[in-house]
Amino acid sequence: MRINASMNESMMRRAIERKREGEALPAATWESIVGAYMQGAIDDDQMAALLMACVFRGVNIDEATALTRAMVMSGATLSYPEGIFVVDKHSSGGVSDVVSLVSVPLVAACGVRVAKFSGRALGHTGGTVDKLETIPGFVVAPALEAFVRQVERVGCAIAAQSDSFVPADKRLYRLRDRTGTVPSVGLIAASIVSKKVAGGANAFVFDVKCGSAAFMRDPRAATELGAALVEISRGFEREAHAIVTDMNEPLGRYIGTGLEVIEARDVLRGAIDDPRTREGCLRVATEMLELAGVEEPHVQAQAALANGSGYEKLLEMIEAQHGDVQALEAMQPSQAAEPVVADRDGYVTEIDGVALGNNVREWNAHDSFAGMRLRVRVGDRVAKGEPLADVYGSAPHRQRVERAFRINSHAPEPRPFVYATI
Amino acid sequence: MRINASMNESMMRRAIERKREGEALPAATWESIVGAYMQGAIDDDQMAALLMACVFRGVNIDEATALTRAMVMSGATLSYPEGIFVVDKHSSGGVSDVVSLVSVPLVAACGVRVAKFSGRALGHTGGTVDKLETIPGFVVAPALEAFVRQVERVGCAIAAQSDSFVPADKRLYRLRDRTGTVPSVGLIAASIVSKKVAGGANAFVFDVKCGSAAFMRDPRAATELGAALVEISRGFEREAHAIVTDMNEPLGRYIGTGLEVIEARDVLRGAIDDPRTREGCLRVATEMLELAGVEEPHVQAQAALANGSGYEKLLEMIEAQHGDVQALEAMQPSQAAEPVVADRDGYVTEIDGVALGNNVREWNAHDSFAGMRLRVRVGDRVAKGEPLADVYGSAPHRQRVERAFRINSHAPEPRPFVYATI
Repeated sequence: MRINASMNESMMRRAIERKREGEALPAATWESIVGAYMQGAIDDDQMAALLMACVFRGVNIDEATALTRAMVMSGATLSYPEGIFVVDKHSSGGVSDVVSLVSVPLVAACGVRVAKFSGRALGHTGGTVDKLETIPGFVVAPALEAFVRQVERVGCAIAAQSDSFVPADKRLYRLRDRTGTVPSVGLIAASIVSKKVAGGANAFVFDVKCGSAAFMRDPRAATELGAALVEISRGFEREAHAIVTDMNEPLGRYIGTGLEVIEARDVLRGAIDDPRTREGCLRVATEMLELAGVEEPHVQAQAALANGSGYEKLLEMIEAQHGDVQALEAMQPSQAAEPVVADRDGYVTEIDGVALGNNVREWNAHDSFAGMRLRVRVGDRVAKGEPLADVYGSAPHRQRVERAFRINSHAPEPRPFVYATI
Repeated sequence: MRINASMNESMMRRAIERKREGEALPAATWESIVGAYMQGAIDDDQMAALLMACVFRGVNIDEATALTRAMVMSGATLSYPEGIFVVDKHSSGGVSDVVSLVSVPLVAACGVRVAKFSGRALGHTGGTVDKLETIPGFVVAPALEAFVRQVERVGCAIAAQSDSFVPADKRLYRLRDRTGTVPSVGLIAASIVSKKVAGGANAFVFDVKCGSAAFMRDPRAATELGAALVEISRGFEREAHAIVTDMNEPLGRYIGTGLEVIEARDVLRGAIDDPRTREGCLRVATEMLELAGVEEPHVQAQAALANGSGYEKLLEMIEAQHGDVQALEAMQPSQAAEPVVADRDGYVTEIDGVALGNNVREWNAHDSFAGMRLRVRVGDRVAKGEPLADVYGSAPHRQRVERAFRINSHAPEPRPFVYATI
């Protein structure tokens, strides 16, 4: 980190005032601010005021790129040897989001290296790291050298975001969370891209979830975020695609840390053929392959799913990270309880992913293999007494689960699965 | 101060988010926020974010009143015995603003008690407290009991804002200054009214300065502030008037701490008859008398000026505050330097009060009786070589003084002195 003698309290006040009045701050100012903040030369109160002004005035692409660069410089970065092309993917967070667990081995099975850094559960959404930890022995935080070697040798690795990456983002995110300054597309994009850049991959796919169970509810805002993510990435010579996908109901059929590992396993070995889950995983895998220049990427991704090579790669990756492959193959949900059933005839018009995600997170605190399997999708016709969801483990708050399903006499309007690709 | 167990970090975050989304916060929330902030239960970063959201979303009269009430409750308050009616006045700050020094004794000479709390110089503007300190012996910070007794016995007193009043305003103002969150009409009004309410007077006149040498440049914003000050005051059962007066050039002819005391003295004893200075002082005195129910207040104020009773009251007040009256009568400017002269024929179109105020403040740091006397007003016709201002004391930065006068071939548009009365 460079010394930023050039930023002090009174200069920061002027920067805040300029942003407050709607000016874009120069790149050098953003770099000085982040540097001085990390050195303790600028306090949280001034930073919070600047962030709130950013929420109102926005942060343009040049500013977000400068902010991203400054955040990346605050910590360690990875890089791969010349000639090795590595992709990474990011999801903005959803319920039953098994995309990483399925798409990463699929892409690697097609010969494209994937170095995936993942997060923990946040709010009602699941975290890939938490899910992987249900596999006995699986090392979610390997040494960075071991991670790089695995990517080179096995073709893929999934690890928890390293603490050594982007410490500025950690401090800023904590401050934004405390001060109500999270919802700014530019700030969100800078936070996401900084971690991807530090991770060292050459290209990124951003899966921006959109809908009632996503952090972005509105397709327009999600598309704006997707575009910002792609544009900022290009400022770092990283090719990127973004897709805005539906999160008005859970992506997969299973909700729960262990259950989503089971779901990913069974999708990869062909034991589950749910169209929505498949589409979510294959779209992201296809975008990743396309960024790596693979011909007919969709055909390749489908083949890796159909011929079992994706599943083989999953096992290889788990083994490389010291996970117990036999335990994975033997994994099953906790004991089944009475299913949740429809209390009337009609159409399923809503499945509240936030409520279901929050409930299952509570259950998983005690039992990693508690959770539920959806028996219906939005739009399905059900008869009174028909099961809506299987419940596993001794799950409290069943009524909350029942209330998460809405059944009406009229079928809901069909919704697209992909709202935009950028 | 009450215990505010009801406000913590997560409730504060929700309050910030509500304000950010444009909601007005309930009175109880404002009270909890200020109480918790003063107790250290809420940190500066969250408060700064809330204040910035207030700058963008505004603070309505109910909110500003609740904030004012909470700030008043943070410290000591004064009150006068039943049956004694006391007025106070406030100026939003200007250059050569001698209104307090002239109007306070004038009003008291008309039989209406005045309890005036004043501030120090701020930026380019002068402070009545700094001016009074140039009178040998004058006590600017009497004990509050002595202050109250003086108001009752002499009829008027001017003292520095007590440190025991409104500590929440001090902390909040310092934070606003650091974080670029000063410019919010509601926050400014709450800050001003809280100190007036704590001072215990029954009625207030707010002299809101407006123009290039004022903190409010735009008459519309100044009028909005005046209206907020009056409305918030009424929430505390205080009658109030506001007048928006011109500060596009200095109010009086003299600029300097000691020189403005000389000017006030000489206006009160009839030795200076400058129409702009007289109007500024008489308008405020008239409003104060009117609030106290005095009949024909303007006639009364003029009479107190003409018959010397205002001057007698000034001397009486100074004596009561241990000031040396003979020293006051003997006060004169430091040695005169070469005057600043016009470098061309034409009309004076601008006298930059900010530049003049800033320069004289620097001089006064070494010599309380350094300063300047304006020989011209905006709109006056001058010939090349004619004096624009007399300069007193060994004044550096003369060129900056010369540059503060702009002379053009066309006369400027005349400006009103009073923009609004509320």
